Amino acid sequence: MELLKSAVLKKGKVLSGDVLKVDGFLNHRIDVELLAEMGKFVHEKFSDCKVDKILTVEASGIAFACLTAQFFCCPVLFAKKSKSTNISDDVYTAPVVSYTHGTTNNILVSKEYLSKGENVLVMDDFLARGEAANGLLSLIEQAGANVVGVVAAIEKGYQGGGDALRARGVKVLSLAVIDSMENGNIVFRPDED
Amino acid sequence: MELLKSAVLKKGKVLSGDVLKVDGFLNHRIDVELLAEMGKFVHEKFSDCKVDKILTVEASGIAFACLTAQFFCCPVLFAKKSKSTNISDDVYTAPVVSYTHGTTNNILVSKEYLSKGENVLVMDDFLARGEAANGLLSLIEQAGANVVGVVAAIEKGYQGGGDALRARGVKVLSLAVIDSMENGNIVFRPDED
Repeated sequence: MELLKSAVLKKGKVLSGDVLKVDGFLNHRIDVELLAEMGKFVHEKFSDCKVDKILTVEASGIAFACLTAQFFCCPVLFAKKSKSTNISDDVYTAPVVSYTHGTTNNILVSKEYLSKGENVLVMDDFLARGEAANGLLSLIEQAGANVVGVVAAIEKGYQGGGDALRARGVKVLSLAVIDSMENGNIVFRPDED
Repeated sequence: MELLKSAVLKKGKVLSGDVLKVDGFLNHRIDVELLAEMGKFVHEKFSDCKVDKILTVEASGIAFACLTAQFFCCPVLFAKKSKSTNISDDVYTAPVVSYTHGTTNNILVSKEYLSKGENVLVMDDFLARGEAANGLLSLIEQAGANVVGVVAAIEKGYQGGGDALRARGVKVLSLAVIDSMENGNIVFRPDED
């Protein structure tokens, strides 16, 4: 998606440790207008699909998921990274490694909000090794719900998580796929269509 | 705001330990349509104010903030609860106690995204003792920015945080103020106008 790619090139910074800093518009300061445009784009790409719910994980996925859900007229469910007193004990859980935080979290959702037969679209800000996406897919599988697809704003294509999902037959839509960030130069994968 | 109060009465649950469980529409499963209506209401109440940015804190404030920001045509900045590798070291920080998680976090924002003279609206899902709101106000003060007001979806009026802010001259808008939850009965404070 050209609008996002332009933002990445204009405002993104490649830091050491394979970190792409896009906190000026995606996951700290949020460019709400841009994310709504991205949501509209996602809706167009999944216009032939029934989406009952969007599933994401706190915190960076929430903005993109909510601004997209408006086009699908569906609710968002965000997986939590820790248990709080206002969540029931009846949860689905899955382990997820976070490379930017250097931690492993057991993400969780209340069973009452993820139901058998529901059609669920997974969304997140980044798709790299696919840790978060696979955790979310595990939650959906545990619930007996259906995976509509996996959407990421930015995919680090060279880390393989997205292609591994595609190889498994999952419909993956990444709005910007980065094939290389060597020497700080961001090289995007050409769009499929 | 009647729509939110109805949702609280219909779907909220009062749990032991003074916990109001509203994770069916506000802070786990998100009723995007409801939150957008709430955002429209907030915009109407602050229509005479210049809002350059909405400041919230991860994770539960993000959805409400983003769906509201669309009406103000402004970006959202969400304070983080921990440092990650994609955030610069140049941050404003403030300590915040979370009673639902039983922890104290040093919330932080990158200095580059909160600037002197900006007009900032603070938003969150809950306002109880005012811990999070005061932390966010501290970040704004450190930056030399201006506080437009503090918005909460639900205020636990009997915990005093909102009234303490009002006494300091801060414009506080809570869409539903709860004056009592004794014996599981939710009693709302009458609307001011």
